[in-house]
Amino acid sequence: MSNGSKERILILGGGFAGVYTAMYLEQMMNPYERDHVEISIVANDNYIVFQPLLPEVISGTIETLHVISPIRRLAKRSHLHTRRVEEIDIEKKQVKLAPGYLPKATVLEFDHLVIGLGTRLNYSLVPGMKEHAIPFKYLADALQLRNQAVRMLEEADNETNPEERKKLLTFIVGGGGFSGVECIAELNDFLTSAVKAYRNLKKTDIRCVLLQSAERILPELGNDLADYAQKILEKRGVDIRLNTRLKAVSADGVIIEQKGAGKSEFVPGRTVVATVPAAPHPLITKLPLPQDKGRIKVDEHLAVPGFPGIWSVGDCAAVPQKDGVISPPTAQHALRQAQTCATNILATIRNWPLQPFLFTGLGKLASLGQRSAVAEVFGIKFHGIIAWLFWRTVYLSKFPGFDRKLRIAMDWTLDILLPRDITQVRIQQPEAVGQEHFHAGQIVFDQGDFGNKLYVVVKGEVEILKNGNVLATLGQGQIFGEIALVSDIARTATVRAKTDTDLIAVSRLAFQKLVANLPGVRSSIEETMRKHGVDFTQLDVPVDEY
Amino acid sequence: MSNGSKERILILGGGFAGVYTAMYLEQMMNPYERDHVEISIVANDNYIVFQPLLPEVISGTIETLHVISPIRRLAKRSHLHTRRVEEIDIEKKQVKLAPGYLPKATVLEFDHLVIGLGTRLNYSLVPGMKEHAIPFKYLADALQLRNQAVRMLEEADNETNPEERKKLLTFIVGGGGFSGVECIAELNDFLTSAVKAYRNLKKTDIRCVLLQSAERILPELGNDLADYAQKILEKRGVDIRLNTRLKAVSADGVIIEQKGAGKSEFVPGRTVVATVPAAPHPLITKLPLPQDKGRIKVDEHLAVPGFPGIWSVGDCAAVPQKDGVISPPTAQHALRQAQTCATNILATIRNWPLQPFLFTGLGKLASLGQRSAVAEVFGIKFHGIIAWLFWRTVYLSKFPGFDRKLRIAMDWTLDILLPRDITQVRIQQPEAVGQEHFHAGQIVFDQGDFGNKLYVVVKGEVEILKNGNVLATLGQGQIFGEIALVSDIARTATVRAKTDTDLIAVSRLAFQKLVANLPGVRSSIEETMRKHGVDFTQLDVPVDEY
Repeated sequence: MSNGSKERILILGGGFAGVYTAMYLEQMMNPYERDHVEISIVANDNYIVFQPLLPEVISGTIETLHVISPIRRLAKRSHLHTRRVEEIDIEKKQVKLAPGYLPKATVLEFDHLVIGLGTRLNYSLVPGMKEHAIPFKYLADALQLRNQAVRMLEEADNETNPEERKKLLTFIVGGGGFSGVECIAELNDFLTSAVKAYRNLKKTDIRCVLLQSAERILPELGNDLADYAQKILEKRGVDIRLNTRLKAVSADGVIIEQKGAGKSEFVPGRTVVATVPAAPHPLITKLPLPQDKGRIKVDEHLAVPGFPGIWSVGDCAAVPQKDGVISPPTAQHALRQAQTCATNILATIRNWPLQPFLFTGLGKLASLGQRSAVAEVFGIKFHGIIAWLFWRTVYLSKFPGFDRKLRIAMDWTLDILLPRDITQVRIQQPEAVGQEHFHAGQIVFDQGDFGNKLYVVVKGEVEILKNGNVLATLGQGQIFGEIALVSDIARTATVRAKTDTDLIAVSRLAFQKLVANLPGVRSSIEETMRKHGVDFTQLDVPVDEY
Repeated sequence: MSNGSKERILILGGGFAGVYTAMYLEQMMNPYERDHVEISIVANDNYIVFQPLLPEVISGTIETLHVISPIRRLAKRSHLHTRRVEEIDIEKKQVKLAPGYLPKATVLEFDHLVIGLGTRLNYSLVPGMKEHAIPFKYLADALQLRNQAVRMLEEADNETNPEERKKLLTFIVGGGGFSGVECIAELNDFLTSAVKAYRNLKKTDIRCVLLQSAERILPELGNDLADYAQKILEKRGVDIRLNTRLKAVSADGVIIEQKGAGKSEFVPGRTVVATVPAAPHPLITKLPLPQDKGRIKVDEHLAVPGFPGIWSVGDCAAVPQKDGVISPPTAQHALRQAQTCATNILATIRNWPLQPFLFTGLGKLASLGQRSAVAEVFGIKFHGIIAWLFWRTVYLSKFPGFDRKLRIAMDWTLDILLPRDITQVRIQQPEAVGQEHFHAGQIVFDQGDFGNKLYVVVKGEVEILKNGNVLATLGQGQIFGEIALVSDIARTATVRAKTDTDLIAVSRLAFQKLVANLPGVRSSIEETMRKHGVDFTQLDVPVDEY
């Protein structure tokens, strides 16, 4: 700051770690610094998500927008760029942002860089997970899950096929940690309450399954609390499968394997939630910074050793605690890391001594819904309604922003008085062109089915069957079901996956509006149709847009 | 009902007309009829939207889910099918529904059919409207508009190009009827309040434009109220353009034409809302029923003459009032039509005499936001805070369902205390493959721009320019910008629309994940790349998915 120009602090990431670093900086700066230090935040969204309350969005206990808080109102003196980070150049001290409305990239320069980009979801471990499982990390995920749950009830209410009905009413959550347990608890509560509005369904039709690869749920909490939580959930009808791994996901079920059993089992179910494991952020792995399993190595001051001016906080940083163990990826740790980081950035600017990160965690809390929870605070374990009241009090007090506190308190009050909301709001357009995964042996469609999609084989092989006989086997790049593009007559053959198969599915509307205009597509499809004896001149039927 | 089997009443449509017909039927039936008459409703969504309060979703005065009410809770004895209607067969007395999760169509049979399918939006009148304007009819539209408004503020806050900044902060609403006026009022209120959270923006940067083709806004209300409404809105900064028609919409503005002016004007603006005119429902135009401008002709009993057992209500029906004039498409009329229709269906079953439709309208109300409104009730005209209180009282009392009434009352209370919510929630995935419209002369991209999309010409012609010289002209089926698929280096040329042009745009991610797998695409693109000297082997770069 000696040269009179402003000291630029750039924070990457709009989670707790990043936003609280900005908030603490704003708080700690003196009036002179306020004029001479510029803080900027780059975040994908203009709000932070209060993760601990996300499960309550599934059940509608809290209104959707109330679990998020606008960053601009929390860090009022900081500049917010609601953009994706494209590139970090440590040497040039520059960060490039993705373009917004204009196709021009923005370049930001910095003196201090705080990397708080978090982690990404690692879909690569389980085939079909990306295509068919709903993750549980962002706000949109909670919304999608809620709408999916209502959609299943709607479909099941009028479904006459008992096997399909069972699929529609089975909800599978993979992962028995905090996130998975809170998710299945809220989902089960919501479904068993909402089902009352459906004339043809009863509470016992709902089946919620929790898959846990370890021998206990909530392993972080110790045996007694874990056992208590398991008993509570089982009493409410949740089917908990311990020592069970998720092997594959498709549109109508999962393949699981019990440890030691040696063989896999297919569990039918149209809703699969996966508390997907974390993977390093792809931008971080590319950086020339010291790393530990994809996380940026920092010292006890949150600084990256050997790179003055570079700091890292939150889940993307490997932050040593007093005892040398790396901090777990929780909000309480992110918040204290932010505080230490802000302190040390200002200390660096002021030439003051740096402070070490001394926080070791206050406790652990998991809500089980219906006024029960499990908690371990300062080594004391408790559960039931006391734990639940404690849980609500802690999180309400931690929620940033007064207006949100009031709104959540109001939501909790109304929730006692009013029935569960069962409106199914479509938040996403049905995807024009989508990917689907099938296990070996799974049926893609049956002879006689309603035909409304064209398929392209991306990976694997499918068999075409007519009256039980295999007529042909199709592989990569081949198409089938193209008759659906000209008419919705019934499928004339059955298609079955011969191996584990990835397909691309294109609806008639998407084909006519978009895909048919792509170069080369029309002629390829027409050629296939000619081979199959379909009149391709009918491809131009008018589009139904209602 | 004489033969002991159930009398089946099938209602198509989940709007006010359809759902209230079911509600009145349930109310009017005696215990014997409750056992012997079966009511079914087919609706696209499992809720009804309370249209009059939809504008308040834009400003966040009312929480999103509170303007909708679940049909199952309103019509508890009816069967609800949340499906799209595929086909109506009047002769066979059958209705076919679109398939749900399983690719099997459902067929419902009926003795009485109530058609209440409403109308659709007519996009065909204005080029580019479908691609770039946000309609204002459904819940998703209000949500999209709110998020778009916040996104514009976010973008503008960091935009340094003054011309682009102006585009981002200009909001254009087409249509000066009830819907357009209420929409611009709420949008303007929201923006001028939310802008306070943005460091680099001020209230006067916001520009809201209302386009009205007639010589007055709110022509239904008469001169004095219309003048009052116009003055109120203009005082708040809304730019009202009377006698002005919307001629075309593109991604960065509209072309308008003033009556008598003879020439058109381009108004830059990235947000265009169109209160799009109604078009007949495509299923209805196909029916062998008597029609009047795409609406089903019914008699004063709501029955279709010559087709016993076929009834029609709401916006899709041409319902004569006492004076012979056709009922306007408002909720108050739909509600009374539903009542008459329900009465007469039961009367037919009971062999009682039919009742005529005698309702002529109670009055007209438009909210102008900020505690003002205009109203005409029983011929008495009034405005200001009295009209506004009246407006709130009427609509709160009319809102179906006690829980929603309570939630809305709570929303209105909190709105007085708390600041506007400025979170931008992405409700839609960025479209994988999308359509874009350009006016003649418009720039698609500039030399030096960030390249992230491939384009295909669907209609019209574009020119490729380098340093001001036209290098080539491309027409239907030709592609450009394909270099974006392998690298995000800057665009090496400018592309400009030579005529009014429709393009398909494909992002790199969409290309790699989906489009490249479609038959014929890869080879066509590779051929073009070869011609242009691009190394197409690079097409397989790994996908960035964060």
